[in-house]
Amino acid sequence: MIDSAILDAIAFDANGPVSANVQRHDTSEMLTLAWMNRTSVAEMFATGPVHNYIRNPLWCKGESSGQTRTLVELRLDRAGATLPVLVEQTGVAGHTGRRDCFFVAARDGEVPEMAAPLVLPAPLYG
Amino acid sequence: MIDSAILDAIAFDANGPVSANVQRHDTSEMLTLAWMNRTSVAEMFATGPVHNYIRNPLWCKGESSGQTRTLVELRLDRAGATLPVLVEQTGVAGHTGRRDCFFVAARDGEVPEMAAPLVLPAPLYG
Repeated sequence: MIDSAILDAIAFDANGPVSANVQRHDTSEMLTLAWMNRTSVAEMFATGPVHNYIRNPLWCKGESSGQTRTLVELRLDRAGATLPVLVEQTGVAGHTGRRDCFFVAARDGEVPEMAAPLVLPAPLYG
Repeated sequence: MIDSAILDAIAFDANGPVSANVQRHDTSEMLTLAWMNRTSVAEMFATGPVHNYIRNPLWCKGESSGQTRTLVELRLDRAGATLPVLVEQTGVAGHTGRRDCFFVAARDGEVPEMAAPLVLPAPLYG
């Protein structure tokens, strides 16, 4: 069980969940931005896997794909309003089959894709 | 001037600004989570410095401290709802005098500080 000291340090409030920056624990690469509430943080500590408990209805859910991510360490800013979630990521993190969700860059006035899919998303999510 | 293609790729909406993950461009370390609206992104591209235009009233503002951060590259997820802002950071990034804002970790049921200030915040912020 997670100690209440940890949950109490996170600034959950009436405005809803806090943002969770999901990063590879060994390289700091950002994989996705997700959102977590008190229940999802507690369940993550109790069980290890992160992907089922991060609320992010728009993209990079990770459910059902086998591309699991497991908690290595939770960090906080002093306000407890932003949570870097350091994870061990199995396979690709992005639902497009790419390594992460951030494969678009602003360059020379355009927004090109920087990376092609590493795997076809269909077998993961089909 | 920033090309409108970049601004149009970012999902600004009635819900307000999008989240901006400010990271060191060379190590991917998260420095702070901030928020940017259309005006702040356009001004960042026009002028280079990031810290004046990121809206984050709670912590890690960076104004007036000389601890500047300058845009190196803006990235996006495909939905344009989260912006990794890769920056060149001068000095410490956190207003507590630490390297970044995330110096607390959840460990063994406690939330200890992992890092001491590298500089005294008082001379930076008076």
